[in-house]
Amino acid sequence: MTSAPKYIGIDGGGTKCRAVVYDSHFSELSSAIAGPANVAKNDHKAFESMLDASAQALALLGTNLTETAAQLYVSAGLAGVNVPCAASSLVNWQHPFARFDFTTDIHSATLGAHDGSNGSVIIIGTGSCAAALNNGNITQFGGHGFNLGDKGSGAWIGKTALSKILESFDGVGQATQLREHLCEALQLTQPSQFVEIYNQAPSTKYAALAPLVLKSAEQGDELALKIVQQGANYLSAIAEKAMAISGKKLVLVGGLSHAMLPWLSQDVNACVIDPIHSPERGAVIYQQNLLN
Amino acid sequence: MTSAPKYIGIDGGGTKCRAVVYDSHFSELSSAIAGPANVAKNDHKAFESMLDASAQALALLGTNLTETAAQLYVSAGLAGVNVPCAASSLVNWQHPFARFDFTTDIHSATLGAHDGSNGSVIIIGTGSCAAALNNGNITQFGGHGFNLGDKGSGAWIGKTALSKILESFDGVGQATQLREHLCEALQLTQPSQFVEIYNQAPSTKYAALAPLVLKSAEQGDELALKIVQQGANYLSAIAEKAMAISGKKLVLVGGLSHAMLPWLSQDVNACVIDPIHSPERGAVIYQQNLLN
Repeated sequence: MTSAPKYIGIDGGGTKCRAVVYDSHFSELSSAIAGPANVAKNDHKAFESMLDASAQALALLGTNLTETAAQLYVSAGLAGVNVPCAASSLVNWQHPFARFDFTTDIHSATLGAHDGSNGSVIIIGTGSCAAALNNGNITQFGGHGFNLGDKGSGAWIGKTALSKILESFDGVGQATQLREHLCEALQLTQPSQFVEIYNQAPSTKYAALAPLVLKSAEQGDELALKIVQQGANYLSAIAEKAMAISGKKLVLVGGLSHAMLPWLSQDVNACVIDPIHSPERGAVIYQQNLLN
Repeated sequence: MTSAPKYIGIDGGGTKCRAVVYDSHFSELSSAIAGPANVAKNDHKAFESMLDASAQALALLGTNLTETAAQLYVSAGLAGVNVPCAASSLVNWQHPFARFDFTTDIHSATLGAHDGSNGSVIIIGTGSCAAALNNGNITQFGGHGFNLGDKGSGAWIGKTALSKILESFDGVGQATQLREHLCEALQLTQPSQFVEIYNQAPSTKYAALAPLVLKSAEQGDELALKIVQQGANYLSAIAEKAMAISGKKLVLVGGLSHAMLPWLSQDVNACVIDPIHSPERGAVIYQQNLLN
């Protein structure tokens, strides 16, 4: 007989939400993925995704949410929590669980990565930021979203590359191979086409261009090198800031983090370690810290 | 007895739309302002704003749109026309006029500024761009919108300043008086407040910060100086590109253009002249060129 489900840890971001079910000894029993859970963008969708992922993971154990919810301790690390109105919406959520706690996805990822001990993470995906854990306190550097920050992230690399390419079409910016690479990959020839497609595009669409820019940088393209290096210098700076607080242990998080690592400073590279636990387990650690 | 209305010239942008009524000798009879007319953002609203401004201007002459529309030649310079789907929506518009023509707001402004002769304009408002008129042909430099371009514009200056201030809060960017100036003016103290307010804000909200940044630059703030000078260098570059085509005549357009002029290059400053006509008259010139 399998152990009974006791805890659920959730990691929720702008594209998906993952729930992991644990028994009373924190052994993983099952997991499942559902839709986005960025509470600042759409709180009701986030609630739905968390319930959906939890129900799916429980179904894999032959049980269902309605039966077990009242016995479950659930904790989530979610994108968008640092926006005040999103946090108040979570506080007021009429959830079905015995207990529900939440924190930022960055906090839970850092707690998981270092099993609650001191350490830092650098998140490089569609967005970017660094975070330091010191005696249970989390400090964040960077982030700030697509319009105002997230420098060095996939979305920032894509947006900066397109912006520079449009300058080169106007004859007031550097014209390198990068322009041909992007025109070819996207099957576009005119600046107005780039503007029409990307003008109102979500950050994920910009982030999809980052691998192309990185490839051009690896091939020595001068403009691509400048963009990637500028982003990487910023990422190294926020990673150093975080490690000044947490001590020199850094875990990489996010889809672009391993591709960006060679561009980060040697000092930062020297501090990279593997994560101890997942962000979902980090969410459970967050709750345990509250309970103890 | 006043001359009968014959032509209407319209200048339509993202915040408002202005219609000017002319007689058959192109003498101005009346004018009125209505809502936004950016066809790429909302074509139906643009149609409504154009009809509204025209009706108001005709009402000032004691006549109404329904009675006179079928005799009127109307021409508009509109924001967003360069987006292909917006242009096709305008082509298919079931307007009530004897004739309706349209072009970009940049084209009509340039035609009006130089009475259809060769010359350039530099537009510096919420957005930015330069345009050159050479033997009736218009060539545009810059623009590309809030996310990808509009460098040196009010929105760009505001966004860049906020982004740099957020870096300084993280300890990885220059910390100057500009931060205190903006915090004080906006009554904000925490980086998260800036992010919450500006994360999803429209470009006009960023542009509203530009005068504060310019004021700090005038007071010698190092960071503000760097931002304003970087924007101005770009604007000088696109103005030079335009004048290489049109000859050395430049008209300033847009709410921030006079404030930015002292930061543009001496060469650019030396070429600035007053406009001959308004953008609305430029729209009428555009139509006359089509008819002749």
